[in-house]
Amino acid sequence: MTTRAGRVETPAFMPVATQATVKSLTRRELLDLGVELLLCNAYHLSLRPGADLIERAGGLHAFMNWPGPILTDSGGYQVFSLEALREISEEGVRFRSHVDGAELFLTPERVIAMQEQIGAEIIMSFDEPVGYPAEEAVAERAAGRSQRWAERGKRVFRPEAGQALFGIAQGGLSAALRRRAAREIAALDFDGYAIGGLSVGEPKALTLEMAQAAIAELPAERPRYLMGVGTPENIIDAVALGVDLFDCVLPTRLGRNGAAFTRRGRINLKNAEFFDDFGPLDPECECQTCRDHSRAYVRHLFKANEILAKRLLTYHNLALYFWLMREMREAIAGGRFAEFAAHWKPRLAGETA
Amino acid sequence: MTTRAGRVETPAFMPVATQATVKSLTRRELLDLGVELLLCNAYHLSLRPGADLIERAGGLHAFMNWPGPILTDSGGYQVFSLEALREISEEGVRFRSHVDGAELFLTPERVIAMQEQIGAEIIMSFDEPVGYPAEEAVAERAAGRSQRWAERGKRVFRPEAGQALFGIAQGGLSAALRRRAAREIAALDFDGYAIGGLSVGEPKALTLEMAQAAIAELPAERPRYLMGVGTPENIIDAVALGVDLFDCVLPTRLGRNGAAFTRRGRINLKNAEFFDDFGPLDPECECQTCRDHSRAYVRHLFKANEILAKRLLTYHNLALYFWLMREMREAIAGGRFAEFAAHWKPRLAGETA
Repeated sequence: MTTRAGRVETPAFMPVATQATVKSLTRRELLDLGVELLLCNAYHLSLRPGADLIERAGGLHAFMNWPGPILTDSGGYQVFSLEALREISEEGVRFRSHVDGAELFLTPERVIAMQEQIGAEIIMSFDEPVGYPAEEAVAERAAGRSQRWAERGKRVFRPEAGQALFGIAQGGLSAALRRRAAREIAALDFDGYAIGGLSVGEPKALTLEMAQAAIAELPAERPRYLMGVGTPENIIDAVALGVDLFDCVLPTRLGRNGAAFTRRGRINLKNAEFFDDFGPLDPECECQTCRDHSRAYVRHLFKANEILAKRLLTYHNLALYFWLMREMREAIAGGRFAEFAAHWKPRLAGETA
Repeated sequence: MTTRAGRVETPAFMPVATQATVKSLTRRELLDLGVELLLCNAYHLSLRPGADLIERAGGLHAFMNWPGPILTDSGGYQVFSLEALREISEEGVRFRSHVDGAELFLTPERVIAMQEQIGAEIIMSFDEPVGYPAEEAVAERAAGRSQRWAERGKRVFRPEAGQALFGIAQGGLSAALRRRAAREIAALDFDGYAIGGLSVGEPKALTLEMAQAAIAELPAERPRYLMGVGTPENIIDAVALGVDLFDCVLPTRLGRNGAAFTRRGRINLKNAEFFDDFGPLDPECECQTCRDHSRAYVRHLFKANEILAKRLLTYHNLALYFWLMREMREAIAGGRFAEFAAHWKPRLAGETA
């Protein structure tokens, strides 16, 4: 995938940098890990420090000093899931800022203008996701509104600056609705497409079924992005369906909470069994955390509430995700993705010894 | 200064790694900063993860993977200042663990055994500090007890492993008492000497006066360590008196709280004036934080409660301290320490524009 700020090898994983930082890590660490594309959140950044300040800094790249491509999420998910929500209408969404309580009104047009001001390479349409479970009628209404909002956003979008605009297909948990929503979004000719509103608590088999229904209707020559997915094993499944882009808070959020992803499944360092385990987090890993520190030390840091614990696990978990994405790309290029998936999926899921 | 784990150029500053980590930083960052000697706390480590576990890991160096020399504080200060204190007698101190509430009894002999087990290069006598203000009679009694405890510790200390044992001279805020306590500790022939119980809230002029009284009685050919001092300008003053070793939580603790030490005084990044300040923390600094990020970005991270804010400021503040120590050593070697101090002291204190 080629963007204004450089190429991105796909399938790619985007670490979540909601507030213009991947929590606990520096830009240098992200570059060392092989991160090419970052996900920031236009909703959070527009509230704090504000799109105006970011523009005055010279745009988001200059503000956070990130040289590579950035994708900003529009914030639809946050506006609808935070408690701040006040009132939804066809025109837009009225809500309270979680930062200072101010009442704000977001429309699909303003969301595009805000993201143009912030200056990421890839910006997202404003959409209305639904929770899980949701009635089909609710999902259908939200998909229709997301479609109309995508259209309104595209009408005001100014492509001259070289930004790319992605549409988001919703559709709840009905395969028929997913197909229709994807078809209608594809008809609007976006630079890329996201499948939204999944990974919200539904069974994983259903996530995949919905992704499969949607992806079949989205043009294969444009990037296809499955929002919010997922564990290493879910990502392998979705790559098999043809997904190009992923983002997920799991490696970073679970890392801050004491969990390490390993090539033999997930472990929680807070567990007593690791008290005197002087081996690395993942014996098959070559990341800096695994080279430098033991499970016993990282566990001690967690028990002592030390910031370094979060850092070391966040770094390791992202290292595992980026190892996985690299290996998948090589397996695809070498025509051996099926074997790769069959070998690693059960191991990463912790299903083999 | 030569230790079992290598040389330390003096005057030296020890970053505080109470729980076997300088809060938020990795060992690699400490090595990059030029850290040679770390301060850990035997009291904290003996409670969590426990001296037994550290010994099983192969000692503190192996446990935390720190290649250079380490000094462990005995924990006298913590035992007396934490709310856990139960009862002091000539024999020792009964208190409750702040980790699990268990009742424990520390004696000067046990404190030495514990530090031998943990395995730092430099270990400290168990002492009884007094707070500020303290009556002279109280300070005198505590100084006498610290002296007897130092003697008891030295009697059981086994130097065969190559560890060095430092005595601690107390004495409250009476110059006469400071001189007497230092003379009596010096008579016990320790490997090095600490001046304890200062920087507890007294005026800075008094800190220096007490340090000066004590240091005159301590042998110049042994390392002399002024515990808990201080700001860059206090350190310059103390080096002028002949102090070789320093430790202080200021650069790390204040950094985590939003303050940056600069070559033009201290600033607090939380202040509104830095909202749109796109310059580095300290325009005269060449550290990674100052090379990579602006005041506006670091301020945003603080306002957004991001861990990275604490990391970036901790790193910068230590970089400034290590720059200062290096420059002082060069100035001393070049016979121009007085000019160095006259130039930098007012600037570091923020007294010149």
